[in-house]
Amino acid sequence: MARRARALYDFNSENPGEVSVRENEILTLYCEQDIDGWFEGANSKGERGLFPASYVEILRNDATTLNNNSCNTSGEPCSDTRYANVPSGGFDGSFKPPNKVENFSKSNLPAFSTSASQSQSQQQQSYSQQSQGSDDDWDDDWDDNSTVADEPGTVGRYRDYEGNGQSTYSLTTTSMSRGNAQGKSSATVSRNLNRFSTFVKSGGEAFVLGEASGFVKDGDKICVVIGQHGPEWQENPYPFTCAIDNPTKQTKFKGMKSYISYKLTPTHSQTQVNRRYKHFDWLFARLVEKFPVISVPHIPEKQATGRFEEDFISKRQKGLIWWMNHMTSHPVLARCDVFQHFLTCNSADEKAWKQGKRKAEKDEMVGANFFLSISTPATPLDFQEVESKIDGFKTFTKRMDDSTLQLNATVNEFARKQISGFKKEYQKVGFSFKVLSQAFEIDQQPYSSKLNQAISFTGDAYESIGEFFAEQPSKDLDPITDLLALYQGHLANYPDIIHVQKGALTKVKESQKHVEEGKMDPSQAEGINERCNIISCATLAEIQHFHHIRVRDFKAQMQHHLQQQITFFQKITSKLEEALQKYDNA
Amino acid sequence: MARRARALYDFNSENPGEVSVRENEILTLYCEQDIDGWFEGANSKGERGLFPASYVEILRNDATTLNNNSCNTSGEPCSDTRYANVPSGGFDGSFKPPNKVENFSKSNLPAFSTSASQSQSQQQQSYSQQSQGSDDDWDDDWDDNSTVADEPGTVGRYRDYEGNGQSTYSLTTTSMSRGNAQGKSSATVSRNLNRFSTFVKSGGEAFVLGEASGFVKDGDKICVVIGQHGPEWQENPYPFTCAIDNPTKQTKFKGMKSYISYKLTPTHSQTQVNRRYKHFDWLFARLVEKFPVISVPHIPEKQATGRFEEDFISKRQKGLIWWMNHMTSHPVLARCDVFQHFLTCNSADEKAWKQGKRKAEKDEMVGANFFLSISTPATPLDFQEVESKIDGFKTFTKRMDDSTLQLNATVNEFARKQISGFKKEYQKVGFSFKVLSQAFEIDQQPYSSKLNQAISFTGDAYESIGEFFAEQPSKDLDPITDLLALYQGHLANYPDIIHVQKGALTKVKESQKHVEEGKMDPSQAEGINERCNIISCATLAEIQHFHHIRVRDFKAQMQHHLQQQITFFQKITSKLEEALQKYDNA
Repeated sequence: MARRARALYDFNSENPGEVSVRENEILTLYCEQDIDGWFEGANSKGERGLFPASYVEILRNDATTLNNNSCNTSGEPCSDTRYANVPSGGFDGSFKPPNKVENFSKSNLPAFSTSASQSQSQQQQSYSQQSQGSDDDWDDDWDDNSTVADEPGTVGRYRDYEGNGQSTYSLTTTSMSRGNAQGKSSATVSRNLNRFSTFVKSGGEAFVLGEASGFVKDGDKICVVIGQHGPEWQENPYPFTCAIDNPTKQTKFKGMKSYISYKLTPTHSQTQVNRRYKHFDWLFARLVEKFPVISVPHIPEKQATGRFEEDFISKRQKGLIWWMNHMTSHPVLARCDVFQHFLTCNSADEKAWKQGKRKAEKDEMVGANFFLSISTPATPLDFQEVESKIDGFKTFTKRMDDSTLQLNATVNEFARKQISGFKKEYQKVGFSFKVLSQAFEIDQQPYSSKLNQAISFTGDAYESIGEFFAEQPSKDLDPITDLLALYQGHLANYPDIIHVQKGALTKVKESQKHVEEGKMDPSQAEGINERCNIISCATLAEIQHFHHIRVRDFKAQMQHHLQQQITFFQKITSKLEEALQKYDNA
Repeated sequence: MARRARALYDFNSENPGEVSVRENEILTLYCEQDIDGWFEGANSKGERGLFPASYVEILRNDATTLNNNSCNTSGEPCSDTRYANVPSGGFDGSFKPPNKVENFSKSNLPAFSTSASQSQSQQQQSYSQQSQGSDDDWDDDWDDNSTVADEPGTVGRYRDYEGNGQSTYSLTTTSMSRGNAQGKSSATVSRNLNRFSTFVKSGGEAFVLGEASGFVKDGDKICVVIGQHGPEWQENPYPFTCAIDNPTKQTKFKGMKSYISYKLTPTHSQTQVNRRYKHFDWLFARLVEKFPVISVPHIPEKQATGRFEEDFISKRQKGLIWWMNHMTSHPVLARCDVFQHFLTCNSADEKAWKQGKRKAEKDEMVGANFFLSISTPATPLDFQEVESKIDGFKTFTKRMDDSTLQLNATVNEFARKQISGFKKEYQKVGFSFKVLSQAFEIDQQPYSSKLNQAISFTGDAYESIGEFFAEQPSKDLDPITDLLALYQGHLANYPDIIHVQKGALTKVKESQKHVEEGKMDPSQAEGINERCNIISCATLAEIQHFHHIRVRDFKAQMQHHLQQQITFFQKITSKLEEALQKYDNA
């Protein structure tokens, strides 16, 4: 008989391989040892699968333990007590949930390294593990520093806004007897024990509960100001942009290893630096880790094969240019140390680079501590108004996500049709005109020859028009796809950002209730209020920024698209006019 | 045992139901009575089917005749002797071969009432039977005066130039003992005994052999003159055109019967007459019968159902306008009595109409006699040059037929794609833009609203562009299809025209041989030469006319097409420019 366990909370399976469990349900464990924080077992209905180890307590009074199913091959004794309410990874954020969703097939999704199904916080964890290795990693011959299986998934549709795909369950620790690893907060304060929660992982909870501490240098202060349309990030007083040019293939180890190097030239330094994709990747990981409520633009998708093909390099370059545009446009991201190090450190100075790299990786002002650096307007926000704004934005992002996905699919299909079908149709017509003119040429009547030439020219014109159609999507549809891909990345970030803000608001409500019940000191609740105000200001500023760049980008892109389309149809018209003229003396 | 017969000549089956026979092959007849000039039977290989009764002689020495297979239900005794070399229908042209090819399915062929597979001479026979009925026929409630099965077939591809799909076999009657129904020609003159031959049916042979006779009024003289590019019809000194307007539904018998009436207004009479489709049909039959080497333009296809639907009426009207254009453009057709009667006789004056109708039907100057009315240039043509020109034209028409068929298929497919696929693609893009703008509208930021409106307008613009694509083919592709249909009709006429001319040339060669062998009087051969010259002049004049209208029509149509396309793409461009402007203040 296998070991049994009791579910402490509801868990709703959201991915293949998982099984749902209900609170108090008695479960069968196939193995007492968890695998990366998950148990394999069956629920009371006999459904088999994985459920979070932290959601269950192993039943101690089970008489027998059959070890024949045991997967404990590590030699360590299985410890039951570890799993009683305490997440296997603790609260330090180092726990990594298995990325079971990553191998789904992807279809028409934009080409950035994430979609709505991949939350920022999942990446946060993933990157903090993957991209903080030894410096030797940099010598890896792969630009894409991971296997395909390790790549962030690009699957599925808009994620549940309530967390990481798992249900959130908040309970008050006062009623529970367990060791609190953090130990700093009062036992009267609510804690969210679901360590899958972005609110917890991002450091949002720790910050709200007053657990964050660190020294903020004056230069690192990030200001939220009240602008015309509400809270916004203080503008970067030293705006700059950065060109990304000349992706070139570099080799090392006497040509044994190759990689692509991009030339970055920021306007503020005017000095070119060379960066590889993995440098971008590393930087992205730092940013995601550091900024809990900032939507870090995603870098272009990883790709294991064909990395040196021209099309791919050009596509990636375009993606990096878009990414860079969003980085330099962001008042907070543009100014942060790690980005500046990335933009300005001389690539040849190995030592300086490694120093900056290590400094960034050891940055203490990440996650919960990031919020310490935010300075807010004097008047605190009205939380009811904040909640309403956040809810509105949530609705907005859902609709925008749906519509951009649809537009992306339509645009891709339209491009495909132009490249294949439209081209073919025009060229078939052109060919038929050519054939007709060739038939007409058999007649040697002198009064026919100019007509024959004109028809032949018309045939050529239609062939050219076919080519025009095939060439056009790269000019006016691909840029739309690139734009949509970037925004899909942002939209995938927002559920987590909203979740952090909502988590903070919940804490405020809980603390008010506790104060009313006399369970909490009003000054403590006031601190929670203040810190929730900081998170709310940051969130609303980020949303404001999102709207600004969205309007800017979509306006520019629609204009570009229409201008290109106009040029395209004018080119066709000219071609036809040229053909028509040939008939004048026919 | 069934009656047996011997094949006198090779016969190659060309249609389903026929069976090939070789000269001297012994055949089995299932019935001694021919069916419309065909025997049903089996060849020596046992292959069953129909073969021409005139190609076989029934073997008299066959011992027994089993009548159990006999289809002789008429009560008349089967006459064997009738079929020995003498066509069942004689040489009077009243024999009608079964139209076995007519029920084939048709696909992408132009919409005129014939195709290359339907020869002018087949129609000649068919119409002379169908359209010369009593005057009561005119009261028929059907515009299309026949069932679908009676409609000229529109099947297949370019017909064999050597005749009506049957092989031609020419033999000298001197070696044969039979009664010559015509009886006018000397026994030393070659006759083509294949009465399927257009040369025979059209009256070409009879004319060349000097058998035609009739009185030609001065006003009926048709002149071939030598122009810049060789023989041509003398221009019509009184050129005119004729408008075809307002097809309207008429009823009679208190609304029990309906038909469509077209209003014809010729420029020379300035008087409107009303004509029905069946009047056009009757006129066409008269013209085909009368003019052996003139390519009479085909009238639009018959249609049994949907005759009162707007689309069909409009299509037929367009076809009739094209037809009328070719009629009035033709120097000979435009001036002929029956056409003038059709154009000018007051529709209300029943008596005058019937008088003209009867006169046309009793016209003696048809077929062989038509050639009598042709007056040629003083210098006879060089037959070698004529032959080379005819051969060149033959090659030309084959290629033109192939290329117009291909162009027609391409254009039809292109139209279909624009109406369905192209429209759909643009409208899908338009819809996606609309959906995006609707999503954006959820954000209430004031700085976003103008962009939202602009994107929404862009969506509308793409929807409109989709409509433009769907509407366009009727403006610039359908006219091409109409043109091609008309020319497919002409191209279908030419094999017969060429056949008549080639038949005349063959007679010249034969007569020369006979003169050399002392079998023919030189003066008789001279007569054949002169009459062959008349046929050759007429044929070359007709070919010249064809090239002139071809160059004129294709030039005009290509120009029209390109102008329409230019307007179309300019319209799209304007729409896009309008959309682009909306972003100016967004």
